[in-house]
Amino acid sequence: MTNSALFPQPGTKADIESGTVFSPRFDAEGLVPVVTTSAKTGEVLMLAYMNDAALALTMKTGEAHYWSRSRKKLWRKGEESGNTQRVVELRTDCDQDAIWLKVELQGVEASCHTGRRSCFYRAVPLGEARSGGPGMRFVESEKLFDPDAVYGHAPAAREP
Amino acid sequence: MTNSALFPQPGTKADIESGTVFSPRFDAEGLVPVVTTSAKTGEVLMLAYMNDAALALTMKTGEAHYWSRSRKKLWRKGEESGNTQRVVELRTDCDQDAIWLKVELQGVEASCHTGRRSCFYRAVPLGEARSGGPGMRFVESEKLFDPDAVYGHAPAAREP
Repeated sequence: MTNSALFPQPGTKADIESGTVFSPRFDAEGLVPVVTTSAKTGEVLMLAYMNDAALALTMKTGEAHYWSRSRKKLWRKGEESGNTQRVVELRTDCDQDAIWLKVELQGVEASCHTGRRSCFYRAVPLGEARSGGPGMRFVESEKLFDPDAVYGHAPAAREP
Repeated sequence: MTNSALFPQPGTKADIESGTVFSPRFDAEGLVPVVTTSAKTGEVLMLAYMNDAALALTMKTGEAHYWSRSRKKLWRKGEESGNTQRVVELRTDCDQDAIWLKVELQGVEASCHTGRRSCFYRAVPLGEARSGGPGMRFVESEKLFDPDAVYGHAPAAREP
């Protein structure tokens, strides 16, 4: 666990689980996983990470900021695409090592760098683990924007 | 990233993002984060982790299995409390390093070791990062079961 100067240090287990002081617990890399859902539809849009600065900025501005693990930088969601996320509610879990963000999508309402609304656009068939089974099913195939046109470079650089 | 013998090895970026072969990408500790939501209400119930064995078992049995980081063991959700999770849908994200599980809750429909339905029972006030601000608000305070009675030992051992 990494200490942060931006938030109170976690107290006892009872403080963490039953208290009202927000003292997020960052992992060894200083990150906390964030589940982002649509406030409108409830669907899970993405799973990303925040460091303490991204979390503090998100709380302060009401706009979702993340830590990009691939680019190793703070990242205001939508800073290039314009598809920003306005925070409607921010929750933490029992042991304060995860965040749930309910957001309203701005722009074309796409959260995935592939152009889709949600990053979770494929369902995995149950009953099979190995490649011999049936393939995944595209639950959402429509791209709401063209990532090449929007980003002007390989989408690889856009991964969380 | 850790290789798994239970799943196909991830291919190219195009395979991973646009293909239909499920080739989950486990982190350096062999884990993948899992968002579990209620198929009935859509709410986020918990954020936990699976190793390859837990994921394969979840797919094979249709019952949620996780990897307990605190207890360092495979964990069939509800094995002690009876509050199991039947998988309705399993999705992966664009870069296949996260899982979204939609589940039906069995038993008393509680997923949190504190006895609550969701682990995300507290909302964090926006606009404040430090402890000087207003405290967190309990969005869900009702405990559907008594963890001491159900587990018969300190709930500490029940953390994901």
